[in-house]
Amino acid sequence: MNYDLIIIGSGPAGYVAAIRAGQTGLKTLVIDKQYVGGMCLNWGCIPSKSLLESAKLYAKIKKASDFGITGLEPAELGFDWQKALSRTGQVVKKLSRGIEYLWKKNGVEYLRAEAKVLSATQVEAGNSIYEAKHIMVATGSRPAKLEGLKQVVELDELLQLEALPQKILLYGRGSILFEQASLLSMLDKEVQIVYSALPMIPGLDEHLESYVLKKLKKDKIKLHSETDLQIVDGIFTLEGQPLDYDILLNCSFRKAVLPQMPSGLELDKGFIKVDANFQSTIPGIYAVGDVNGLSFLAHTASAQGLAVVNHIQGKTEAADLSLSPLNIYSYPEIAQVGKTEAMLKAEAIDYKAAEYQLTANGKAQTEGSADGFLRLLYEDKYKQVLGVQIVSEHATDMIAEAALLMQMEGTIYELAGTIHAHPTVSEVFMELGAQELNTQRE
Amino acid sequence: MNYDLIIIGSGPAGYVAAIRAGQTGLKTLVIDKQYVGGMCLNWGCIPSKSLLESAKLYAKIKKASDFGITGLEPAELGFDWQKALSRTGQVVKKLSRGIEYLWKKNGVEYLRAEAKVLSATQVEAGNSIYEAKHIMVATGSRPAKLEGLKQVVELDELLQLEALPQKILLYGRGSILFEQASLLSMLDKEVQIVYSALPMIPGLDEHLESYVLKKLKKDKIKLHSETDLQIVDGIFTLEGQPLDYDILLNCSFRKAVLPQMPSGLELDKGFIKVDANFQSTIPGIYAVGDVNGLSFLAHTASAQGLAVVNHIQGKTEAADLSLSPLNIYSYPEIAQVGKTEAMLKAEAIDYKAAEYQLTANGKAQTEGSADGFLRLLYEDKYKQVLGVQIVSEHATDMIAEAALLMQMEGTIYELAGTIHAHPTVSEVFMELGAQELNTQRE
Repeated sequence: MNYDLIIIGSGPAGYVAAIRAGQTGLKTLVIDKQYVGGMCLNWGCIPSKSLLESAKLYAKIKKASDFGITGLEPAELGFDWQKALSRTGQVVKKLSRGIEYLWKKNGVEYLRAEAKVLSATQVEAGNSIYEAKHIMVATGSRPAKLEGLKQVVELDELLQLEALPQKILLYGRGSILFEQASLLSMLDKEVQIVYSALPMIPGLDEHLESYVLKKLKKDKIKLHSETDLQIVDGIFTLEGQPLDYDILLNCSFRKAVLPQMPSGLELDKGFIKVDANFQSTIPGIYAVGDVNGLSFLAHTASAQGLAVVNHIQGKTEAADLSLSPLNIYSYPEIAQVGKTEAMLKAEAIDYKAAEYQLTANGKAQTEGSADGFLRLLYEDKYKQVLGVQIVSEHATDMIAEAALLMQMEGTIYELAGTIHAHPTVSEVFMELGAQELNTQRE
Repeated sequence: MNYDLIIIGSGPAGYVAAIRAGQTGLKTLVIDKQYVGGMCLNWGCIPSKSLLESAKLYAKIKKASDFGITGLEPAELGFDWQKALSRTGQVVKKLSRGIEYLWKKNGVEYLRAEAKVLSATQVEAGNSIYEAKHIMVATGSRPAKLEGLKQVVELDELLQLEALPQKILLYGRGSILFEQASLLSMLDKEVQIVYSALPMIPGLDEHLESYVLKKLKKDKIKLHSETDLQIVDGIFTLEGQPLDYDILLNCSFRKAVLPQMPSGLELDKGFIKVDANFQSTIPGIYAVGDVNGLSFLAHTASAQGLAVVNHIQGKTEAADLSLSPLNIYSYPEIAQVGKTEAMLKAEAIDYKAAEYQLTANGKAQTEGSADGFLRLLYEDKYKQVLGVQIVSEHATDMIAEAALLMQMEGTIYELAGTIHAHPTVSEVFMELGAQELNTQRE
């Protein structure tokens, strides 16, 4: 059993790389100890977005009478967690079947087993030894275990609860925490957060971070700093008074999930150390996605996986993954791509920041989704756009236009010069571009 | 009373041009006989999209129990036309105040009166004569009157009905007709169409046209060709049997709305004839938007208005408006930008067509909006994208990424090479780009 490539882990790093590897003629085997699609498809991105869609619809229905819809009794409305989960399960099933179909179509083999990497060319799984020219470790990450605390629930366990309890405490920080807080708050739960540190969402521009903090306040989500609390009998306690919660959702910092690895592998803070081509300290063994600790974004993981397939095929140019959007599926959504103001300042780049409020956008007004803004950071000389930030009901899809612009090294002239259809929310790109050009002229 | 520019008509051609003219230092007067914002803001784009938002929410609520929402009685649900109109009215008021604010801020004067153009430099309105170096006619269009037919309602009249009748016949063709048919059908009305000619939506790619026809069938909207019908006692009649309808919504072809104009003005099929700079046959008098008959799209009208301001300021380069997206706000939405297959064939361009179904997109699945596709037309040698077509719940906003790509003369390499966030609907751009590159490799 000889392969060109064995991939361990079938999340967005592994499954995307496997399809591409198969397409490009590499004899490829994917080994995953659990489900096709990994954490992202089974417990993370997809289920959480599916539940958020349910919650957003629930929030909209509460305001539906403004839109002219009759026959709704707001007091009668409720949310059936099991039913929402069941729809989620169907979506997951469809998508994982899609992955298996694409694997098969491209000649990728798949084995459900726990894998051990024995050497740079050998993997043991299900009592067999598989040989490969290249090994890709894409085993992901999990939140650090919370020791000494009671009532702790992990994200995957939340999706198996029969019903949601009323009072939920979230511990940790980051975009997953904020998304879950939004979800639970929209579902009428009493949500509290114990943040392990600030900023609440590392990597976010300060302007968006301050929006996030304001939004939590607006949604009446109580915030506690971990440093102000004690743990008494396994319960977070403030000045002798235990916080009142039924479960504690663990959104603490993530740690690599490592299979058994051969000696010679170096780690960095628990993550597999890699070079610019995502190759570990053992030549021939690559590590992509969360397990290398460089990023915890699904699409960055996929891009790393694809970069490795390219590298194996002899493409020596290192991949530039700096233009990975950061998406948060709250309501409204938050998205960012490129550099933050802090990065521009650190690099001493002469830049301008420009902002456009969605209240001035006709389409957003017709949708009742005018809460938000577009913000551009561009360097002052050639007007190249270096960073884009969006708060909007559609931010996570709108950011694609910004990512493309920046990938093509576009300026505000291109934004202003591209005819955007009226009425659309994306018109704000053109409007803000034009506004900045006019400011220049004055 | 001397102005650099007098603009007649305050729709998307006129009001956008006025703001820009003011910003760039031109002493500008806008004259409109009715409401600020013209047809688009008061009866067209904005109200129709606002009502479509209401109808789409109504359609979603009918399926909300799948999403886990309880306490809804589908049989109890209804739609209050007056209430939806009232929200629409508030949106319109907000936006028209926004326009007046921007005019004021930029020193633009505004007069509500009927205008007569006396010469290349003189406009009469409200018993005064105004002098101007340049005149911009932006008076729009209206559907041709339907003679010999009873129960006819114009679009602006529809928005003033106390309640909608049950059986509605739409006459004409084009994207407004299709949008209105979608709207009324979502609101549980019995909708029939008498089309004046095919294709149903002129200018649409054949692939999208055939989608439109299939969609009408799926929505159980009955189609009649005008040629099969007679008009008997003012009612459309098929083989002696009058069609059963309460009102007939006029969506027939549009005719220019012309103010009194000086002699020397040439028309073309009733529209003001213009050169590449939108200047009429009378130097100094420009005509932009529907009134010149080149396009009936709001954003193209705005772009023409801006081009005229540039021309007045001495920029001689003619504006390229060929990349104007065509958006249809049905459910799902339809959007197109760039060349159609028919155009590519006529120009003998060696092209490829590629298609990606939304069923394979995770985000679309989580939203329950996987009905649709992305289609790319690209020339075969350098892979430059020449046409993009989308059917998706989000098509009208997604098309902005395609328009930007084409404005920047991008290829499928750029689509495939731009990291798109996961999970998003816009990932389909990247997926389809990558799919085509892999097909090349095979």
